Order: sequence, then structure tokens, then C-alpha cells
Amino acid sequence: MSQRTKIKALLTGEHVGTEVTVKGWVRAFRQNRFIALNDGSTNNNIQIVVDFENTDPALLKRITVGAAISVTGTVIASLGQGQTVEIPAATIEILGDSDPEKYPIQPKKHSLEFLRENAHLRFRTNTFGAIFRVRNTLAFAIHQFLQDRGFVYLHTPIITGSDAEGAGETFHVTNFDLNNIPKTDTGEIDHKQDFFGRSTNLTVSGQLEGELGAMALSDIYTFGPTFRAENSNTTRHLAEFWMIEPEMAFYDLKDNADLAEAMLKYVINAALEKNKEDLEFLNQRLAEEEKQKPQNERSELSLLDKLQFCLSNDFVRISYTEAIDILRDSPANKKKKFQYLIEGWGADLQSEHERYLVEKHFKKPVILTDYPKDIKSFYMRQNDDGKTVAAMDILFPGIGEIVGGSQREERLDRLEQRMDELGIPKDELWWFLDTRRFGTCPHAGFGLGFERLVLFVTGMGNIRDVIPFPRFPKNAEF
Amino acid sequence: MSQRTKIKALLTGEHVGTEVTVKGWVRAFRQNRFIALNDGSTNNNIQIVVDFENTDPALLKRITVGAAISVTGTVIASLGQGQTVEIPAATIEILGDSDPEKYPIQPKKHSLEFLRENAHLRFRTNTFGAIFRVRNTLAFAIHQFLQDRGFVYLHTPIITGSDAEGAGETFHVTNFDLNNIPKTDTGEIDHKQDFFGRSTNLTVSGQLEGELGAMALSDIYTFGPTFRAENSNTTRHLAEFWMIEPEMAFYDLKDNADLAEAMLKYVINAALEKNKEDLEFLNQRLAEEEKQKPQNERSELSLLDKLQFCLSNDFVRISYTEAIDILRDSPANKKKKFQYLIEGWGADLQSEHERYLVEKHFKKPVILTDYPKDIKSFYMRQNDDGKTVAAMDILFPGIGEIVGGSQREERLDRLEQRMDELGIPKDELWWFLDTRRFGTCPHAGFGLGFERLVLFVTGMGNIRDVIPFPRFPKNAEF
Repeated sequence: MSQRTKIKALLTGEHVGTEVTVKGWVRAFRQNRFIALNDGSTNNNIQIVVDFENTDPALLKRITVGAAISVTGTVIASLGQGQTVEIPAATIEILGDSDPEKYPIQPKKHSLEFLRENAHLRFRTNTFGAIFRVRNTLAFAIHQFLQDRGFVYLHTPIITGSDAEGAGETFHVTNFDLNNIPKTDTGEIDHKQDFFGRSTNLTVSGQLEGELGAMALSDIYTFGPTFRAENSNTTRHLAEFWMIEPEMAFYDLKDNADLAEAMLKYVINAALEKNKEDLEFLNQRLAEEEKQKPQNERSELSLLDKLQFCLSNDFVRISYTEAIDILRDSPANKKKKFQYLIEGWGADLQSEHERYLVEKHFKKPVILTDYPKDIKSFYMRQNDDGKTVAAMDILFPGIGEIVGGSQREERLDRLEQRMDELGIPKDELWWFLDTRRFGTCPHAGFGLGFERLVLFVTGMGNIRDVIPFPRFPKNAEF
Repeated sequence: MSQRTKIKALLTGEHVGTEVTVKGWVRAFRQNRFIALNDGSTNNNIQIVVDFENTDPALLKRITVGAAISVTGTVIASLGQGQTVEIPAATIEILGDSDPEKYPIQPKKHSLEFLRENAHLRFRTNTFGAIFRVRNTLAFAIHQFLQDRGFVYLHTPIITGSDAEGAGETFHVTNFDLNNIPKTDTGEIDHKQDFFGRSTNLTVSGQLEGELGAMALSDIYTFGPTFRAENSNTTRHLAEFWMIEPEMAFYDLKDNADLAEAMLKYVINAALEKNKEDLEFLNQRLAEEEKQKPQNERSELSLLDKLQFCLSNDFVRISYTEAIDILRDSPANKKKKFQYLIEGWGADLQSEHERYLVEKHFKKPVILTDYPKDIKSFYMRQNDDGKTVAAMDILFPGIGEIVGGSQREERLDRLEQRMDELGIPKDELWWFLDTRRFGTCPHAGFGLGFERLVLFVTGMGNIRDVIPFPRFPKNAEF
């Protein structure tokens, strides 16, 4: 049964003169004669030519949009425009019908909202076929890049016993009957009776466990799901999303930035090489979407230009302090165009500031380093100035922060002091502190939000459209 | 800082005569002279030779097991046995001390139980370094194998709205304050007020969502965490484990078995090629463990023999019905050596039966097909005999079931009838049924339990030792 030829292979033209069997879903059927058939191996369809005069009319009727069919015929060079080869059908078999009155995905433009509600079928559209093939390329390219450099892929736990990192609200994981939660004598929830014998939740990051691996295997990375129970109904947030978190022993902040920049360029290049047709389609889609916008809101660069631009430019590297100077003195700040005006050092940067730096001021991706310690996490390495930490954020056009990382605080006394200052329970993180007790060393790492990368590379506007089945407030369908 | 050379590269001998910097953790320090240094890039250590007469005694004292150090020196061919090169240290820097009185990992044999309690440090042992490097190779080889064949890696959701598959007990995921769960007027839990507006849990399988992808992209796979809230304290079960689930449009059961067999051979071969030293170490470890067992319980094959054996033999393919005949007529059954005697057709096979077939009868991996429908899932394709389904399980020596799969029921009427028989709510799975309504087609897939594969390839005996931080009843440490 698998003796079929995929459409991607057929469209190379190598099979001209050969009899093949092709299987897929009908995208269109014109003039009772031309079937556009797609099997998901490429965004392009193959044209099947039906000899309608010699085909059973009952069969012809069943060739409808969405139907699954199997076609056998000899590949010929195409006479028509826009395709290299076509297949005059010798036999056509209907594998699965699709009632044209009921099939939700019609051969017309559907809104992204409608397709989100039909996420089980949106893989069959040009847009989403392209998105998920690009997503696949990016995921594998990340593995390939890190494997080539000797990194060990580490599966850190999804269910964790503490939210010690304080990265945000977490989801509870429990095996309790919610109608009958066991209590202790003093009326508190008796977590000892829960499945894990303690209160547990879904991880917000694999970093702390990743560091444990790096302190023995040198270079590791995680690639897994992470969770935030934040009630954010935005185009940039999901409750469930995938993160890549490399962690490297013996790296300082510069090494860390070098690796992140090289990795981003490598994976974007992989998509340009392997998904040419998908990205050309998405480029066109974005161009049409941009035309709907007022002139002054349109992007100066096309999607393909933007990707190429990231490859051909060194990312700008400046400190937070330099960035604050630029922002404070910017026309946008002076004319009060920022929603949050920059008054001075110490302010947390908002998306509008990040985008100003990237899109208006430098017109390049920017790596911002050395943030005030008060707006960053406890585990970041304290700089000698006493007020900043060796953090880095990578900012991308249209997206803002795509990577967040730091050199880690490897000095036990400094780390404990900072945890005390912030009220982070040291006893819960005894294992994390142990790595600083026994053979500590300088090390660094970063987190790459995978969906933000896919957003950037596909040019889509809503993060819910770049993950197969998005999870967000009031939605866990499929 | 990253201008260090990894030990794996140094041990190739290519750097003889070159000055290098090497960084890692001290595994042993003998005679105040020979440091065995490891950086996790390989199981082997590099020997650092210390000129102790010209080294500060205070520094020498700090070269302790577990300490992180940086050494610079010129690589020379080694005079000693068992190593190709060594480095006379020109400079030694202590990066992180390790108090030998307190460091838990001493240069002696620790029990696996002890190391499980110190999972944050066990990466630093030979056994666990080898296990996690092999695990990494297997994970990447799975991606490589499927990517080479045009499969799309699909991230199916971790948090799901239903346990319609009925694969086992699930963990609840909730954002409720467990001390104050909102109730409706009629006193029931008001799930509408929860984060997702419904009751949610952790996924037991990505298959159903994976099928949605395959019905458009043709060949997809998942590789993600799955969960079971089962109170199983065994050496074969985890509450959180990783699964690979390929799903292929236009595949029948034979295609499915062909793919699974080819994939298993490919990834085992990858480990043999890339992790020669790790597997030799694990082979030796297992041989020593076997020596502790009574003669009649010892495995006939060494670990390396067993791996090679899987590569060089076609897997046996027989039906469940044939297997029952073999088991019923077996000496083990006749002499009542099975705990569960096989009386006839319809019995669910236990681990003892699976292992008998694989280890005693055929002495090869076995693919069992066409099980009674009553012991298999609702979504498996019903055979024409009316009593079996097109299921397949792959059985491995020592492990039992390593792969479970089937051709899927693509006929809407048959699927709905089976769901009704089993009381599976069709309305919850409207999206799954839609794929049978619109362009259905023959398709198949399987699930590979990743930790069981790692168990098999590493020869370890307890599944808690092949995942970095195991989750099981009453344990979610780290």
C-alpha cells in the first residue's frame, strides 16, 4: 500500500515516462477534468487530468474538495502553465468521500479565526501546511545544530515539586478527587496523600534541572513543553508552549551570545533552504495582509527580506545602560510617543522600547546585556558593579524578545545571598545549590521560545496559529 | 572562555604536540600526580600529569574528587597503559572546590538506589554519563530516521480536555485554589471557572491529534511527554515518560510493521556506531551484575550480543492466534510454569508469555498481530473475521512490549459502532470523527515507549535509571 510516490518527488520531474500511484486529498476539481491533488509533502499540488468522457459519471461526482483519492497513471511533462508535470489518470479510486455541502474547508479564503476553530482540518490549507512544515524544519535544525556541537539532549521533568524559580503562575497537577480533597487535622490540604506525596505543578522552565546536567556532561539542551497559567489573551502568549534551553559549562556571557546568534542564523537558513516554496507562499500571504494596513503601519521589509536580513547582519550587542541612553534621548521618548516613557536607569523595557531599538534605531537584531539585577532572576551572575547581572535578551523585529539568557551565578555565597534577599527557599533547591558546593564552574545558558521563532520565520501575526492545537484561557479544544 | 578542547577530541590523538586547555571534573587523583579528568563528552578520562614537586601544596590539596579544574598543557603520546595521550600540566586552575568529606559521589561503587536519591549528581558517574549519552543518540536517531523519510514532527497538546481514549488514569490539571473550589448552584465543581473553562488533564497519548495531522501532511510523528497516574511501583513504569508516535496516511498494518522494524534497527545501529565506548562500559557493567545472579537466571547473551542480534535478524511476524497455539502447547504451559496458564483464544498476554515467545521459543524479536478486539482499543481497524483487529505489538527480549500500534479504523460506521459498544462519548471526539467524515483513508501508526528503548539498549534493569529525574508514586524530587 505504501507503494505510492509522494507529490514532492513527482514535481521534481524525475518520474516523467514512469507509471506511478499517487494518493492525497483533492484541493480543487475544475471543468470535470483537472484535479489539483495534495498529499502534504509540499505546498504545491500535482495536476491529475481526467478523461471525463470515458469515466463513470458516478465516480466523477465523488471527486470533491477534501476527498481522499488514489490515482495511477504515467507522468508526462505538463503542457499547462505553472506546473512541470501532470498525470493523465489511468485509474482513479475514491478512498474517502467528502460531502461538499458539509466539508468546512471550502476552496476559498477562510479567516484565521475560523480555521482556529477547525484546527483539526486546517492542516489541509496552504497556509497551515506551510506553517507546520516550516515548524518541523526549525525543530529539526535546532537538534542538528546542537548535536553537531556535541550537546546532549536532556529530558527535564514536566511535573515538578516547586515553583522556586518564581517565573509566573503555574498549573497544579493532582490526582486528588477534587470533590473530596483530603485535609490534615489542622484543616490544611494533605498533600502527602497526593500522587507524588507533595504539591506538584507543571514546569515553567527546565533550566535549573538542565544546569545539573551541564555540570557533568558540559553541554546539554532541553526541548520540551513549558507552561504558564497566566490569563493573557494576547497574540504573543500561550498557556502551553515549547522551549529550547541550552546550558553550557565553561561558557561566559559572550560565548552564550555567540552560540545563540549562530543557532538562530543556522535554523533560519535551514528553513530558507528546505522550505523555499512554503516561505514564498507565506511571503506572498503576508504581502497581501500588509496591503490591508494603512501605509504607515506596513513593514518596510517583506518576510523573505527580513529572514535574509537576519542572516547577513551581525546582531548589535549593547548593554542595557547604553539602551536606556538611546531610548531616553530618542525622538519617540521626547515626543511622548511611548506609552511608558523612559525616565532613567532601572526601568523594565516594554515591547514598544524593544521594537524601537530593533526596528527604528538599529534596524538589526539586538542583543541587550547586563540588566539591573532587580528586574532579573536570582540565578543570574552578579556583575562587579553591584547593580547589574550578566543577563542577555535577544530582540527580533516584530517579535521583541525571542531569547532570554544569562551567565549563571556559580559562586555559592553570592547565590545564597541573592536567594535570601528575594525570599527564595533554599531548602527546596538543595540540589541546585549542591552544584555550587561540589565542583562549581562558570556556566551560561539561554531559553528560546520555539513558537516565537516560528512566528518570526512564518510571518504570522498570532502565536495561536503556529502551534497545532493552542492552549489559552478558556480553550483546550482537540 | 570556550576556547577549551573537549576530552573526546583530545583522545583521538590528533592534538599531540599542541598546547590545549582542558576543563572538567576530577574523577580521581592518584599519588599526588595523576588526575583522571572527565568533561562528559566521553566516558573516558584524560590523564593529567602533575609536576607535584613544583606545584603549590595548597593547590594540590584542592585537587579532589568532584572539583572542577582548568588545565593547560601540551598533549603528548601516553607512556602508560590504557590511554593514548596525556597532558603534563603547565598550569592548573581550580574553578570549583569539592570537599572530599562532603561530596556524595566517592570514587567507589555506589548502589543505583543511592544514585537515584542523588540524581542531580549521578550524571558524573560512568554509568549515568553513558546512559544519558546513549539516550541522546537514540533520541536524535529517531528524528533523523523519520526526517529522512519526509515525516513532519508535530507537537500535539500536553494539556487535553478529555480522557476519551481511556488509556488509564490521568492527572488533573487545574488553576483552582484547591482550598476553595468553585461550585455550581447544584453543588458540582464549576469547571467553567477553571483556566480552560473545562476539566483538563495531562495527555496519555498524542495519537488522536497525530491522526489529524496525518490526514493532511501524510506522515507525521510526535515525540513528547505522556503521563499515567497509575500507582505502579515497578521497574517498568513511570508516571511521566516520553513517547514517539508516528502516524502514516495510506499505510496498512504491514507497512506499519516494516517502518517500526526499520526504525528500531536504525536507532540501535546509531547507538552502536556513535556510543561504542559507552556501550562497552555498559556491557561490562551488565556482565558483572549478571555474575551476581544464579546461573539459571543469567542472560545467554551479553548486552552487545543482544543489540547485534536485533540488527542481524528479521523480526518474527505471527498472529495472536498462532501465538496462543504455541503458548498453549508449550512445555511451560503444560508443566504449569506460567503464573497465568493459557487455556485458549481470547486471553490477554502477560509479560511472562511475551518473554517466553521472544526469549525461549523464537529467540528473536517478535511482531504479534491481529489481537482479539476485546482486549484492544476502539480505534483499531476491525478485521473481516469479526473478532480481531489489525493491531501489532513488538516484543523485545528482557523488555516485553516496546512498540504498540495498529492500522486505524478509517470507516466511520464501524468506528461509531465500536465507540457505542464501548461507551466512548462521540460528541467529545467530534474532531476525530470528522477525519472519517471528510476524506478518510487507510492509515496506521504506532507508539514507541522511549524509556523502554533506552532500557533495552543500555541493559539497565530499572526504568527510573534511564530518565534524568524519574516521576513515580510519592516522588517528584528535583
